[in-house]
Amino acid sequence: MKKMVGFGDFMLRLNPEGYLRFIQADRFQVNYTGAEANVCVSLAMMGIETDFVTRLPDNAIAEAGVAQLRKFGVGVGHIAYGGERMGVFYAEKGASQRPSKIVYDRKYTSIATCSYDDFDWDAIFDGASNFHITGITPALSSTAPQVCAEACRKAKEMGLTVSCDLNYRKNLWSEAEAKACMTRLMPYIDVLVANEEDAEKVLGIKARDTDVTSGRLNRESYVDVADQICRIYGTQTVAVTLRRSISASDNEWSAMLYTGGRAYFSRKYMIHLVDRVGGGDSFSAGLLYGLMNGYTPQETVEYAAAASCLKQTIELDFNLSTHEEVEKLVAGDGSGRVQR
Amino acid sequence: MKKMVGFGDFMLRLNPEGYLRFIQADRFQVNYTGAEANVCVSLAMMGIETDFVTRLPDNAIAEAGVAQLRKFGVGVGHIAYGGERMGVFYAEKGASQRPSKIVYDRKYTSIATCSYDDFDWDAIFDGASNFHITGITPALSSTAPQVCAEACRKAKEMGLTVSCDLNYRKNLWSEAEAKACMTRLMPYIDVLVANEEDAEKVLGIKARDTDVTSGRLNRESYVDVADQICRIYGTQTVAVTLRRSISASDNEWSAMLYTGGRAYFSRKYMIHLVDRVGGGDSFSAGLLYGLMNGYTPQETVEYAAAASCLKQTIELDFNLSTHEEVEKLVAGDGSGRVQR
Amino acid sequence: MKKMVGFGDFMLRLNPEGYLRFIQADRFQVNYTGAEANVCVSLAMMGIETDFVTRLPDNAIAEAGVAQLRKFGVGVGHIAYGGERMGVFYAEKGASQRPSKIVYDRKYTSIATCSYDDFDWDAIFDGASNFHITGITPALSSTAPQVCAEACRKAKEMGLTVSCDLNYRKNLWSEAEAKACMTRLMPYIDVLVANEEDAEKVLGIKARDTDVTSGRLNRESYVDVADQICRIYGTQTVAVTLRRSISASDNEWSAMLYTGGRAYFSRKYMIHLVDRVGGGDSFSAGLLYGLMNGYTPQETVEYAAAASCLKQTIELDFNLSTHEEVEKLVAGDGSGRVQR
Amino acid sequence: MKKMVGFGDFMLRLNPEGYLRFIQADRFQVNYTGAEANVCVSLAMMGIETDFVTRLPDNAIAEAGVAQLRKFGVGVGHIAYGGERMGVFYAEKGASQRPSKIVYDRKYTSIATCSYDDFDWDAIFDGASNFHITGITPALSSTAPQVCAEACRKAKEMGLTVSCDLNYRKNLWSEAEAKACMTRLMPYIDVLVANEEDAEKVLGIKARDTDVTSGRLNRESYVDVADQICRIYGTQTVAVTLRRSISASDNEWSAMLYTGGRAYFSRKYMIHLVDRVGGGDSFSAGLLYGLMNGYTPQETVEYAAAASCLKQTIELDFNLSTHEEVEKLVAGDGSGRVQR
Amino acid sequence: MKKMVGFGDFMLRLNPEGYLRFIQADRFQVNYTGAEANVCVSLAMMGIETDFVTRLPDNAIAEAGVAQLRKFGVGVGHIAYGGERMGVFYAEKGASQRPSKIVYDRKYTSIATCSYDDFDWDAIFDGASNFHITGITPALSSTAPQVCAEACRKAKEMGLTVSCDLNYRKNLWSEAEAKACMTRLMPYIDVLVANEEDAEKVLGIKARDTDVTSGRLNRESYVDVADQICRIYGTQTVAVTLRRSISASDNEWSAMLYTGGRAYFSRKYMIHLVDRVGGGDSFSAGLLYGLMNGYTPQETVEYAAAASCLKQTIELDFNLSTHEEVEKLVAGDGSGRVQR
Amino acid sequence: MKKMVGFGDFMLRLNPEGYLRFIQADRFQVNYTGAEANVCVSLAMMGIETDFVTRLPDNAIAEAGVAQLRKFGVGVGHIAYGGERMGVFYAEKGASQRPSKIVYDRKYTSIATCSYDDFDWDAIFDGASNFHITGITPALSSTAPQVCAEACRKAKEMGLTVSCDLNYRKNLWSEAEAKACMTRLMPYIDVLVANEEDAEKVLGIKARDTDVTSGRLNRESYVDVADQICRIYGTQTVAVTLRRSISASDNEWSAMLYTGGRAYFSRKYMIHLVDRVGGGDSFSAGLLYGLMNGYTPQETVEYAAAASCLKQTIELDFNLSTHEEVEKLVAGDGSGRVQR
Repeated sequence: MKKMVGFGDFMLRLNPEGYLRFIQADRFQVNYTGAEANVCVSLAMMGIETDFVTRLPDNAIAEAGVAQLRKFGVGVGHIAYGGERMGVFYAEKGASQRPSKIVYDRKYTSIATCSYDDFDWDAIFDGASNFHITGITPALSSTAPQVCAEACRKAKEMGLTVSCDLNYRKNLWSEAEAKACMTRLMPYIDVLVANEEDAEKVLGIKARDTDVTSGRLNRESYVDVADQICRIYGTQTVAVTLRRSISASDNEWSAMLYTGGRAYFSRKYMIHLVDRVGGGDSFSAGLLYGLMNGYTPQETVEYAAAASCLKQTIELDFNLSTHEEVEKLVAGDGSGRVQR
Repeated sequence: MKKMVGFGDFMLRLNPEGYLRFIQADRFQVNYTGAEANVCVSLAMMGIETDFVTRLPDNAIAEAGVAQLRKFGVGVGHIAYGGERMGVFYAEKGASQRPSKIVYDRKYTSIATCSYDDFDWDAIFDGASNFHITGITPALSSTAPQVCAEACRKAKEMGLTVSCDLNYRKNLWSEAEAKACMTRLMPYIDVLVANEEDAEKVLGIKARDTDVTSGRLNRESYVDVADQICRIYGTQTVAVTLRRSISASDNEWSAMLYTGGRAYFSRKYMIHLVDRVGGGDSFSAGLLYGLMNGYTPQETVEYAAAASCLKQTIELDFNLSTHEEVEKLVAGDGSGRVQR
Repeated sequence: MKKMVGFGDFMLRLNPEGYLRFIQADRFQVNYTGAEANVCVSLAMMGIETDFVTRLPDNAIAEAGVAQLRKFGVGVGHIAYGGERMGVFYAEKGASQRPSKIVYDRKYTSIATCSYDDFDWDAIFDGASNFHITGITPALSSTAPQVCAEACRKAKEMGLTVSCDLNYRKNLWSEAEAKACMTRLMPYIDVLVANEEDAEKVLGIKARDTDVTSGRLNRESYVDVADQICRIYGTQTVAVTLRRSISASDNEWSAMLYTGGRAYFSRKYMIHLVDRVGGGDSFSAGLLYGLMNGYTPQETVEYAAAASCLKQTIELDFNLSTHEEVEKLVAGDGSGRVQR
Repeated sequence: MKKMVGFGDFMLRLNPEGYLRFIQADRFQVNYTGAEANVCVSLAMMGIETDFVTRLPDNAIAEAGVAQLRKFGVGVGHIAYGGERMGVFYAEKGASQRPSKIVYDRKYTSIATCSYDDFDWDAIFDGASNFHITGITPALSSTAPQVCAEACRKAKEMGLTVSCDLNYRKNLWSEAEAKACMTRLMPYIDVLVANEEDAEKVLGIKARDTDVTSGRLNRESYVDVADQICRIYGTQTVAVTLRRSISASDNEWSAMLYTGGRAYFSRKYMIHLVDRVGGGDSFSAGLLYGLMNGYTPQETVEYAAAASCLKQTIELDFNLSTHEEVEKLVAGDGSGRVQR
Repeated sequence: MKKMVGFGDFMLRLNPEGYLRFIQADRFQVNYTGAEANVCVSLAMMGIETDFVTRLPDNAIAEAGVAQLRKFGVGVGHIAYGGERMGVFYAEKGASQRPSKIVYDRKYTSIATCSYDDFDWDAIFDGASNFHITGITPALSSTAPQVCAEACRKAKEMGLTVSCDLNYRKNLWSEAEAKACMTRLMPYIDVLVANEEDAEKVLGIKARDTDVTSGRLNRESYVDVADQICRIYGTQTVAVTLRRSISASDNEWSAMLYTGGRAYFSRKYMIHLVDRVGGGDSFSAGLLYGLMNGYTPQETVEYAAAASCLKQTIELDFNLSTHEEVEKLVAGDGSGRVQR
Repeated sequence: MKKMVGFGDFMLRLNPEGYLRFIQADRFQVNYTGAEANVCVSLAMMGIETDFVTRLPDNAIAEAGVAQLRKFGVGVGHIAYGGERMGVFYAEKGASQRPSKIVYDRKYTSIATCSYDDFDWDAIFDGASNFHITGITPALSSTAPQVCAEACRKAKEMGLTVSCDLNYRKNLWSEAEAKACMTRLMPYIDVLVANEEDAEKVLGIKARDTDVTSGRLNRESYVDVADQICRIYGTQTVAVTLRRSISASDNEWSAMLYTGGRAYFSRKYMIHLVDRVGGGDSFSAGLLYGLMNGYTPQETVEYAAAASCLKQTIELDFNLSTHEEVEKLVAGDGSGRVQR
């Protein structure tokens, strides 16, 4: 029996209803989110046992957030309580030519000020098969990289597969900081997820000798980048999400999986977006679902692409799609017919 | 003066707001719906006198539903009260690749357990010109087919034109059950409405010798099927709605009318869907409007297609378009310019 | 370590927002409720391990309900899936002289049609200390009393303390039916909860020689009734909630606990009601909390009265008060000062 | 079979949600109201046939208002269409010491500019037993008094009982204007409704020799005023509502009926207000219900007081109480117990 | 330092939420709007000092509207108070083939009945560089054209640049009335804004010798029309917005600026509409921003087109885009990527 | 012409709708608040010129907050931008026995980390007559007391009247810290506002020789405390708000003003609370209104008590009562009659 442990930030997400701008809103929708928590929720919805580890202040807002994790079946038994505050993430949904707008209030949070010893890692990893983090967690503070590195090392020691989504956020740290930290983490990582820009910005790896003058997504360059990552860091599996923004309302979405020296590309989806936040996290969850269940690489990348396509048709950050729903889309029914 | 009587189920429809999934919703929008009731509301909005007949429990929820019918001008004077419950229909709106999701709770309802004698059919049909049912009503219970057959027979006896939308619902009965019942009803039916799958599943009629390898809608096959229906059952008029699902957000929509040995095709509409539920019912209403007002077949199919196109741009099940609005779309103004 | 198991119905509760009547509402608030589930949620909020057992149809609405139980920390691992439907409970909130209005749609539900063998009782009761049911569960169908009786017998066999809230509902069964069933269950029940009318209607026990002409609550009569119950059925503990309805907006609330031949009365609360539904269930939870933690009878009745007072200041059916909040009210701070 | 015809204004009512002030609101609740329309809705809910006559512009907002009347069963077949606008009535709900605030935008409306010949009075009064207007309708414009007078005269000619609620509104006309108009109407009026101030301001009738120094409602003075009205104008029945405003949240409410030289006082209700607007109209409806059904004076005043008490526990202007609900309150069950 | 003064109507705008029709709505969203007020808000958001002049009744609804102007930084110190009412503008949002629907209630308003002397024009124009009106203001009543003409004359006298958006509204006045008024105003106007139909309907100017058989927007004809306007009236700058309605959901949008005998065309935007009302006003604001800041004609038309493109992705009438956001779109980032 | 300057924190306030608990809410109402900002808004609503000074991060949430201040007419021209975050204040409304619950997230805010030189105090105080702060501002960080002291000193130097509401918040600092800071500020303060507990906790001043055994508010003790404050610190005016919490729903409210060696008590109000947060701030505003307009002490305390009574009947933190509304309540009309 497989079990996934996620470790990272967990924030209050507030957004105006519909397409209202912040300045127009007299109500915010309340959601709780975090890259690794989103992966846990997504896997839990698919039927995988998960446990989410974070550090939260001991107050009623954090309690309400934890209740949301419980609602979707994520284990919350190893969350540490302490510190001063929970992060807040304000999100205004864009439309057509107007981009979405994000305001972060993530400093001085309980997770940013945590230390390795705030958590009982032996108990956390006991019985788990997978450990997942993202590049956001080490970016939260100057001490966070060390906690992440120790947690990854511990996970590897205890035999877990470690996965990481690079998830570079320029508002949280510089490229130099990201590079310094992530290159140190890379040796522990078995499965790496990245989007188009992450590899260059975080790992400094560019595609060699590929023609990018066309301005369009270039399959060869992604293969080359993934190949370099595997060679340099010994990573087993690299997955890349490929988003083409037609507008804030419509995106083309697909993915590549590189493993065993070969690249596997998924089908492309033209998505009329409901909420794109959390798309990458649901891709990681789909990827892990495939890997944890012994899917072939092609099956895995199709599953992950379909799962994350569905996420982007769902409001808020969690991918509330079941395994059956993802499978149905993989099987090709993307026509949106009513089922009755 | 024409008057239409509809007979069938009438349910509470509950749906999460916007694109929320059931599991996310802490409120449901409340609507009341039923295939035949939707046809009545649509015709009443267009200015036709209608009367809707059903059986409901004597409670405050049913009263609230009846008040909705009254609001849109539908006659409710022959509704029978008794039985144990009103059906509930939960609907989650899909988007892009995510299909809409329907949960039915329609068993043991007052209409499912009704008998022919619960209604005063002489009074109901007195002064009426048309009787409309759908294939949903006989599917509601094992005794429902008999009630429907007797009502149709009575309507014919009293000189009404009988129309029926096949409306096959696989969650309510099997193809065999549907076939057994509907072939028995066919002799009473003057005007038949079907979508692409209904004729084959319910009547077992397939297109002969047409090439369906293209995977696209094939006009010839629809003509052939309609022709067979008319020959076998003596039906005067057969109408078919033609939906092509691009995604859960965008559909192409048109229709065919077959009468007097000739087929008439409507214009095609590319619809950015607001709510597709009730699209077929509004088509039936538009069709009946044309037939009741002596429109030519081409006028009739254009009117019905335009009416049902508009319905799919309106929230919830009722087509709240007026006759003037339908006419305007028929006349070609589909550009959506603001009128001021 | 104590653990409570609840067994009973679990329904969708729908109510108009605020003080709107059903006929005015175009949205319903969505909640999921059931007498025993409410007790479980209340205890879970107070920190007690609980497990709720019911039978639900395998559909998305039931899943959404189960997610609510998980949200508040209630164990849902022994819920059986099958049957045809989930009950629905429509509630319109009263105000001042206008009473609240309830419409039940609870027939033919999965729990009403369950059999004893749908559940793995050995696993359910393994490690549990308490089993709680109410008089609603056996009232759900003609086969329900037998399932309840067998479950209680099994619980007793496995050494659990059995508690029951009589909870007579005249819309579900007659007094005669209730009496036939409940007197058969009484021998298994250690802790009985009742309100003012239940004992007479369900058990046929009236106060002897007490003067009820005053029209006011008579403490002696409650003591006498509780005493008779203990003598006749060998019940160890009888608790009675004492509600005086000033209006639909204001109620006086207190309780009596009878055990060891002595009666203990709680403080009286004058409550400006937010939502009175679930008041009795939260009382049972508070009572069980006291009993499971070895409180004295006076402490127990005060705790239960305070818990259920707080519930009635909270929207919807669940008592979302923590143990600390209940304790604070018991300690006498009912002034409602802001804490900051 | 009795049938009531109401004639008067019908407006859009807009109010912020809950206790928000206008300046805080970014949404208004939408309702449609008018004194006589409210009486019609109330009677229709009680089972009496009603027909509401007004004049409205031919636009989509007026149509939406008419649909509301239909929803509650009021006849709308004699509404005239024409003129330029529908009135708007903005209402901000007060609380405790903060009074409710009303902004009227009722000038130049279709009803204010109507003429007697806009309506087919013979058809309107055909088959009707009662005609009801209020002092608001003649106050709408300089031509309105004439239309009202002719309509009343016509109603009397055709044998209807005419009732009128004085309903003085200082924002619509002066006391002098009101007096000039209403004294001219008085000879046609069989049943007069007034509140405490109306009689003096509109009819110039004060209580003789009664001691009002106490500042409390003085029963004798009301009897005296009613008696004077009957003597001067030959009115058969005078009803007075007695409101004591404890605060914007709590009011004491009762009524007096004077007929045949005797006064009948109703029970007093202490109401925790949900929405007091429409209280007087629901009283008129209750009064007419009693008179139309041959109730005794005491029964009538109790029925009218109970009906209008219930209205004030209901949101918005319509009294959505059924006859059964009013009867139950008359019978003494004002405790607000849940019925289940 | 530049400062813009706007003069015109200011109304309450009410619209159902989302895509609901008027007849379905039990709440309206509340906004306050007016063509010139919208221009002021848009410029204020971009950092330009503005002052909006209108006449409003002295009531709480008007106060709430003025508070909205203050919220977005528009000067409200010269608003005159008096008259009887504020206009109301009901807007139902269309979708796909269903057009948006507008109901005006703008007669007898305080602004429609104002006179030139209600305002202190010397104080109003003191320190201002620009005066902006639209063709809506003179259309409000028979006396409005005179007030507008005097205000424009005064503005010219005091050295302001006068701009005007023709904004023909067939519901407010006839083409003949518009022509009579606007040709009289033209001599005062330095900057003229029009859409495709305005020039012909209001000024009677048609394109010469251009081939319009194609049914598509014809660039040459717009140039020709602008050229004629400049020659006939001596206008310095003419700007034309070019909207192609694909459907009520999707529009193509661009603009032309004609000045110094040359035409400048902006980029084209394919907009998935959120709310198209106010699109023209935000174009005027963008145009004025460019002109007031000394942009080149090409920069100006790109800025104005981008600003008004963004407006149409924003709910309600105000363009709440900042200068930075407009610049970003001008710079070419229309991909809608999330910024974080 | 008088002008008031306020200086302090300005936060986002988030609260669940109605009486929902945090854990139940999927939306929060959005408001922006701060003790001194609330005083400014209240005075601006009454017609007094105000300017609010704070320090905010340069992001879209802070901008939205500033827009709210502008909406109600408060000057925002001297707000400093910089620092890392804006505080958040989560508020759950209590009811009956359930207290309101506050969660503060106010650390590391831009105002907490400001320095005296972030503001141009000469410009700020130029033309102002009054400066108002509260005990919350110095409590925000270790450097805040120094900034407050310097600002007060500067204000005194420039001839302003300095007022301060002690406003002790135990969650922000200890009694010892408060005492150390506030005793240092006292010499600058002309007008001091306190509630029952503040004087003892912050200034260490207890009533001498008064009998507090009764448990009720003791007028003599307040007089004695105020007298001591005036003697020790040379304060000219001391005002005390007197709240008696009957429950979280009902409070008794009055106030005392002590000046020139005499105490003046206001009328008592029994308030059915809508939202008590901001009650103290609106009292300060009412007090300043009276003092700035030369009211007598009795008039001043009545005005301040009435203003703050009204505030508590209004949702959210701002007192949106006009001067006319306060005057009306002072004049004795607290009956809540509808004005129409």
